[in-house]
Amino acid sequence: TEHYRITLLPGDGIGSEIIAVMVDVLKTIAPKFDLEFTFQEALIGGSAIDATGNPLPEETLNTCRESDAVLLAAIGGYKWDNLPRHQRPETGLLGLRSGLGLFANLRPATILPQLMDASTLKREVVEGVDIMVVRELTGGVYFGEPKGVFETETGQKRGVNTMAYTEGEIDRIAKVAFETAQKRNGQLCSVDKANVLEVSQLWRDRITALSSQYPDVQLSHLYVDNAAMQLVRAPKQFDTIVTSNLFGDILSDAAAMLTGSIGMLPSASLGASGPGVFEPVHGSAPDIAGQDKANPLAQVLSAAMMLRYALNQPAAAQAIEDAVQTVLNQGYRTGDIMSEGQQLVGCREMGDALLRAL
Amino acid sequence: TEHYRITLLPGDGIGSEIIAVMVDVLKTIAPKFDLEFTFQEALIGGSAIDATGNPLPEETLNTCRESDAVLLAAIGGYKWDNLPRHQRPETGLLGLRSGLGLFANLRPATILPQLMDASTLKREVVEGVDIMVVRELTGGVYFGEPKGVFETETGQKRGVNTMAYTEGEIDRIAKVAFETAQKRNGQLCSVDKANVLEVSQLWRDRITALSSQYPDVQLSHLYVDNAAMQLVRAPKQFDTIVTSNLFGDILSDAAAMLTGSIGMLPSASLGASGPGVFEPVHGSAPDIAGQDKANPLAQVLSAAMMLRYALNQPAAAQAIEDAVQTVLNQGYRTGDIMSEGQQLVGCREMGDALLRAL
Ligand SMILES: CC(C)[C@H](C(=O)O)[C@@H](O)C(=O)O
Ligand SMILES: CC(C)[C@H](C(=O)O)[C@@H](O)C(=O)O
Repeated sequence: TEHYRITLLPGDGIGSEIIAVMVDVLKTIAPKFDLEFTFQEALIGGSAIDATGNPLPEETLNTCRESDAVLLAAIGGYKWDNLPRHQRPETGLLGLRSGLGLFANLRPATILPQLMDASTLKREVVEGVDIMVVRELTGGVYFGEPKGVFETETGQKRGVNTMAYTEGEIDRIAKVAFETAQKRNGQLCSVDKANVLEVSQLWRDRITALSSQYPDVQLSHLYVDNAAMQLVRAPKQFDTIVTSNLFGDILSDAAAMLTGSIGMLPSASLGASGPGVFEPVHGSAPDIAGQDKANPLAQVLSAAMMLRYALNQPAAAQAIEDAVQTVLNQGYRTGDIMSEGQQLVGCREMGDALLRAL
Repeated sequence: TEHYRITLLPGDGIGSEIIAVMVDVLKTIAPKFDLEFTFQEALIGGSAIDATGNPLPEETLNTCRESDAVLLAAIGGYKWDNLPRHQRPETGLLGLRSGLGLFANLRPATILPQLMDASTLKREVVEGVDIMVVRELTGGVYFGEPKGVFETETGQKRGVNTMAYTEGEIDRIAKVAFETAQKRNGQLCSVDKANVLEVSQLWRDRITALSSQYPDVQLSHLYVDNAAMQLVRAPKQFDTIVTSNLFGDILSDAAAMLTGSIGMLPSASLGASGPGVFEPVHGSAPDIAGQDKANPLAQVLSAAMMLRYALNQPAAAQAIEDAVQTVLNQGYRTGDIMSEGQQLVGCREMGDALLRAL
């Protein structure tokens, strides 16, 4: 029996509802694959602020560090939007990423045949879309120093952030991206703004230099504005995309929305060593929290990503992914992916259907 | 008779072909509206590099400064992509923007009924889309100092750019945006990343503070990642968008591509005083340059924008816009907007059709 210590971070909004479904799924598959999970719950985000005044209590970070993997739901809500920065839910999330050294964020945007009509794009444009965005997650303008609001000589306020990357930071994310592309269709598109930004020029130079080590990967480059256009114009041209923290934030969300069903998309954040964090792409949806309306499938698929990428249990991951396919084929739909002729279910009912399918 | 001095900047690629059509159009309408134009051509971008070694010769900037308005086509091409930064076409464009103080960039994304099927989005999603992106154009990470590639203590290279805004820079673009929204549907969405970036928090604070002076404008805020999603999910929710230089670069291109016909979109770049620059949203299309295949309509509509925003000649602007509608209704299409049952024409033929329509 393999034994894994898993930290659960339900966070805010619909977090606890979707985490509950995911835990049931993991408990159900565990005996079938000879796995044993110990779950430890910890606080992050708004709920951590309410309980401790800190969006990422030291205890949470320690619990995560001592575990084999972390399953996060989502953080944030209107309630905490106007607090000072160090007390904002987002600050807890950024602290978790840097605290665990999670420099590589893998965000798939895959369109499911059952949900194709949910896309706002024409069927022929999105049919078969399968993109993996590899986003750098602990550098760039998110963390660069100096940052803050300073006073100019004339007494005006000036807001400043620093967009910066070292060669080492670029190289390690490039490595993850090339290896990801190798396992996919061998196409890697690096996105930057090298025609304007020096930091992007260094990014492009390093990626280009490293590409000789991956002769089986076909590398291309796009400027970020063009990449945003191409995602709308012809998303099927993309296989794997690698980009910086900020550009990845924007493009991975745009790519996710092409599918029309972001309630279905998981993601993984990985470091050089230590536990990774697995979480849905969608947010905490405070407007439907506590109403048993949330779609738990992205959370459940995040657990599958964990099994595959962190725990090396591909068969168990596959079993979960198959169960998700089964419930979709059976016609179960939460509100966010509902369409005519299908059966509308709540979060818990969707969970029950998954357990039956397993 | 009103007399205007116009600087023409054909730039690179298809530039000279589409400028030629536009000049014919302006010459044709001039007598009808009692206008007189003196055209002065100047070099910018790759063609300026080839001729002078400098993508923005001092003479060009002087010619622009002495004119009432500048009509630019597009710059850039593969040929100049690997030159050092100070010799790149883009550097000439950035120098023109800062040299003329063009802090406000107006980029419409309007879907034309005749071209709706060109969109990759479903008809019901894009029908009636009419967005104006007000992009800050002379600040932010495009111009912030320090910038460059530096050496760290460990001898690694570190690429650095600075994302910065002063209150004064935010206030002046906010003013343009609120006034633009007033002339449109009174909805202004400000896009930032205030949950992560201090510079964005200052942006949001200033825009919010100024909004009390515009009680007739309904202000909302979106984070840039969410804005990218919302543009794909439900673009009709937007009227006027105001955002920083980099976010505006990305979002205005995404918004333009929603229409499926970026060969139709003009833009305006305006300063506090002095001449504005009017140009198509699309690029220099080096792949079809010199083949009489380019779509001149965005260039022609840029001249209409000039007449309306810079020269205060709305009737002449309207005449041009009507002529564009007429040729589309007559079924003339260049390759980029061609669809079945329409008549494929080249750049010059499209120009001839416009002259007949005027
Ligand atoms: C909540 C926010 C800090 C975060 C980010 O910008 O990275 C989110 O948008 C994401 O993409 O995970
Ligand atoms: C060519 C480039 C410098 C420019 C920009 O980034 O502003 C272009 O993308 C644009 O949007 O006008």
